[in-house]
Amino acid sequence: MNDDKGRPDLRINGERLVSSIKEMGSIGFDPETGGRTRLALSDADKKGRDLLCRWMHEEGLDVKIDQIGNIFGVREGTDPSELPVMMGSHIDTVRDAGMFDGVYGVFGGLEVIRTLNENKVRTRKPLALAAFTNEEGARFQPDMMGSLFYTGTVGLEELLSSKDENGLTAADELDRIGYRGSGTVRAGRYIELHIEQGPRLYAEGLPIGVVRGIQGLAWWAGEYCGESNHAGSTPMDMRKDALLGVAELAAEAEKLALRLGNGSVATMGKISPKPDIINIIPGKCSFTLDFRQFEKSLFEEGKGEIERLITACAEKRGLKYNFRKVAEAPAVVFDSGMVELAERVSARLGLASKRMVSGASHDAQFLSPFCPTVMIFVPSKDGRSHCPEEWTEAEDLENGCNVLLHSVLELV
Amino acid sequence: MNDDKGRPDLRINGERLVSSIKEMGSIGFDPETGGRTRLALSDADKKGRDLLCRWMHEEGLDVKIDQIGNIFGVREGTDPSELPVMMGSHIDTVRDAGMFDGVYGVFGGLEVIRTLNENKVRTRKPLALAAFTNEEGARFQPDMMGSLFYTGTVGLEELLSSKDENGLTAADELDRIGYRGSGTVRAGRYIELHIEQGPRLYAEGLPIGVVRGIQGLAWWAGEYCGESNHAGSTPMDMRKDALLGVAELAAEAEKLALRLGNGSVATMGKISPKPDIINIIPGKCSFTLDFRQFEKSLFEEGKGEIERLITACAEKRGLKYNFRKVAEAPAVVFDSGMVELAERVSARLGLASKRMVSGASHDAQFLSPFCPTVMIFVPSKDGRSHCPEEWTEAEDLENGCNVLLHSVLELV
Repeated sequence: MNDDKGRPDLRINGERLVSSIKEMGSIGFDPETGGRTRLALSDADKKGRDLLCRWMHEEGLDVKIDQIGNIFGVREGTDPSELPVMMGSHIDTVRDAGMFDGVYGVFGGLEVIRTLNENKVRTRKPLALAAFTNEEGARFQPDMMGSLFYTGTVGLEELLSSKDENGLTAADELDRIGYRGSGTVRAGRYIELHIEQGPRLYAEGLPIGVVRGIQGLAWWAGEYCGESNHAGSTPMDMRKDALLGVAELAAEAEKLALRLGNGSVATMGKISPKPDIINIIPGKCSFTLDFRQFEKSLFEEGKGEIERLITACAEKRGLKYNFRKVAEAPAVVFDSGMVELAERVSARLGLASKRMVSGASHDAQFLSPFCPTVMIFVPSKDGRSHCPEEWTEAEDLENGCNVLLHSVLELV
Repeated sequence: MNDDKGRPDLRINGERLVSSIKEMGSIGFDPETGGRTRLALSDADKKGRDLLCRWMHEEGLDVKIDQIGNIFGVREGTDPSELPVMMGSHIDTVRDAGMFDGVYGVFGGLEVIRTLNENKVRTRKPLALAAFTNEEGARFQPDMMGSLFYTGTVGLEELLSSKDENGLTAADELDRIGYRGSGTVRAGRYIELHIEQGPRLYAEGLPIGVVRGIQGLAWWAGEYCGESNHAGSTPMDMRKDALLGVAELAAEAEKLALRLGNGSVATMGKISPKPDIINIIPGKCSFTLDFRQFEKSLFEEGKGEIERLITACAEKRGLKYNFRKVAEAPAVVFDSGMVELAERVSARLGLASKRMVSGASHDAQFLSPFCPTVMIFVPSKDGRSHCPEEWTEAEDLENGCNVLLHSVLELV
C-alpha cells in the first residue's frame, strides 16, 4: 500500500486541519495583543504538548519523549525493520506569535495520519510525527534545542543547563512540566511542512514552495570609534563621525547584496550611536550585520566583501573599528530526490510550485545531514510572521498538507 | 584714564589667572573621571558662586544678585551717568566638564579688574563683571537661563518653574542655595572671553579668534516607518527598511553641508531602529538632525534642503515619515565696531587673530540685541570641550585676557 498511485484521490480534511490549528492557537492566546505566547517549557507549552499527546494517543500512535523533551508519535508499518518516515516541526512560539509557525508542520503531519487512519491505509514503513523542543529560542538559548540534541549537534548537558532570564534551567522546567523522557525514534526520512514566513509565494500567487535548502548565514557585531565633538563648532572636514561611517556601511551592505544577487540578503538590524545626543557628533557607533546566501561560492565571496566593507568604511573616515563574527551557519542543501518528489507530487495535484531557498532556519536544517530531508512551504500573507498578523489562507493550508500526504505516501 | 594708549604696557597677571581658574576647577572635581560637575543651583554651584562673590568683594566690587540668580559685580567709574561695560560668562558646568568653559570668561574679567585695581587705574565708565545662571542647561532647561531672563527673552515665572529630573524647581533651588536676589545691573556693552570649544584656532596655530557672530541653528526630530520583516526570508527588492532610509539621510545631510560650504555643518546625533534585533529588518527608525550656518540666505537654503532630503530619502524607499523642527535660532551678528576693536587690540598686542563664527551658543548671543557685544576666543586643544580633556595652554589664556583688558580699556 506504499504506492501513492493506488490512492490518487486521497485528500486530507482541510476543515479538521484548520480546526486543530485553531484549537492549538487558543492556548496562550492574549486577547489584548491578538497573539499567543507558548514559550518553550512554560505552562502554555505544557498545555500544547498535552493536547498534541492526547491527539496522538487518539490516533493510536506510540508516543515517546526523549531526554530534551522532543515528542514523537509512531504509526506502525507492516515492515518493522524499516526506519520511519518522519513528519514534524515544533509547537513552541515566540511572544505574541501567530497560529501557524511550527504548529502547521506538526498538525499537518497529524492530519496526514488522521487521513490514513480513517481511510484504513496501511503502509510498509512506519510513519512518525515529531514536535521538537524549543525551536524558537525565545526563552532558552540556543534555539533549535530539540533538533540540535536529536542530531547530536550539541550535547545534552549543555542544552539542559541553559537558563531563562529568571535563572530557571531547561532541565528543571522539563521536569516541572513532566516532559523529560528517555525514549527516541530514529528517522529514515524527514519532511517538514511550514509557512514561508517570507513574501515570495504570496507575492507571486503560488500555492507551494519546495525548499531545496537553507541559506548560509553569517552575523557580525562591530563598533566604529571616532571623536565625539560639538555639532556646531566642529567643521565638516575636521570630524571623525562614527555614525556616518556606520550609515555608509549600511548602504554599502545593501549595494553588495544587490550586486551579488541570487537571493543574497544583507541587513543592518541594530545601530547605536554614542553619546546619542542631538547636538553631539557621535564618537562611537555600534552595529550588527546579517548576510545570507545559498550558493557556497557566493556565500564565501559575500562574507569576505562584508568584512572588507566594515574595514573600508571605517578607514575612509579615519575611524578605529572592531568587529567579530558572532554566528555562522553554512548553507544546507536538501536531498535532491526529496525535492524532486515534492515537486512531482505538487504537479500531480495540479498545484504550481516554486523551487526556493529558505531564508529562515528550521529544525529541518539539522535533520538534513542525518537523513534525506525536504521542506514544503505555503504562502504567508504579506510575508508576515512572528506576530499576530501572521496569516495563511485555509485553502493554502489544505494544499500544502495534501502535498505532504502524497509525498509521504510515495515514501512509505 | 579711558585712553588705552595711556597704559599700553599694562598686562594681566597670567599666573594669578590660571591659579584662580584652577581653584574654581577644584570645586566639584571628581578624581575618578578627572572632570568637575557644577550643575546649576547645586551645592557645588553654590560653592563656586561663594568663591566668586568673595573675590568680587575683595576687589571692592558692588555685588548684586538678580531674580534668576545672575551675579553682577560693579567697579565704579568716575562718571556715574554712564552704563557699565560688562564682561562675563558663566560658572555652571555640564557633568564631568573641563576647567575652562564659562569660568575663563568670568575669571578673565575678574583678572582684568584685579589688574586695574593693583595698577590704580580709574575709568570714566563703570566696569561690570557678570556670571549668568545655568548657561549649560545640564540640570534645568532651557539652557542660557540667566541671559534669557536678563534680556527679557523668556519670562521669570517660566524659568523659575523649570524642574530638574528629581522634580526640584529652579525657584526652590535658588532659595536653598541663597542666590535669589532682587538687584540688577544694566550693561552698556558686553564682551565675553571664551575657549573656542572647536578645533580651528588650535589647528591653525592662531592665538585669538574674534567672533563676529553665532551660527543660525535648526534641529529636527523624525521617524521613518517601513516594515519589520525577517532578515533571511525577505528579498532585497521586497523590503521597506527604515534604517537604510535614515542611513541614506545621514549621508545626504553630510553631502549637503559640504556642498553649501561656508561653515555649514549638519549632524545626525541620534538614530534608533526598531525592533533593534540583529536578524530583523528595522520597520521603524527615528533620528535627529542639527544644521547650522551663519549667512542668512545659506541658512534658509540649508533648512529647506534638509526638509526636502528627509522627505526624499523616505519616499525613495516607500517609507512613511514624520518629522518636526524642535528648535530654531537665527544667526546672531555681533556689533561690527566691537569686532573691529577686538581685532585692532589683538594686532596692537602682536597677536594674530582670525575673524570667526561661533558654532556653539553663548550668553553673548542673547546680550547682542541688547547692547553692542563681541566675543574673544582662545584655542581649545584638539577642539575638545565638555569633557575632562578640555584644555587651553596658560599662554593662550593670558593672551586672550590681555586682549580683553585692552579692549575694555578702549571702551571705558
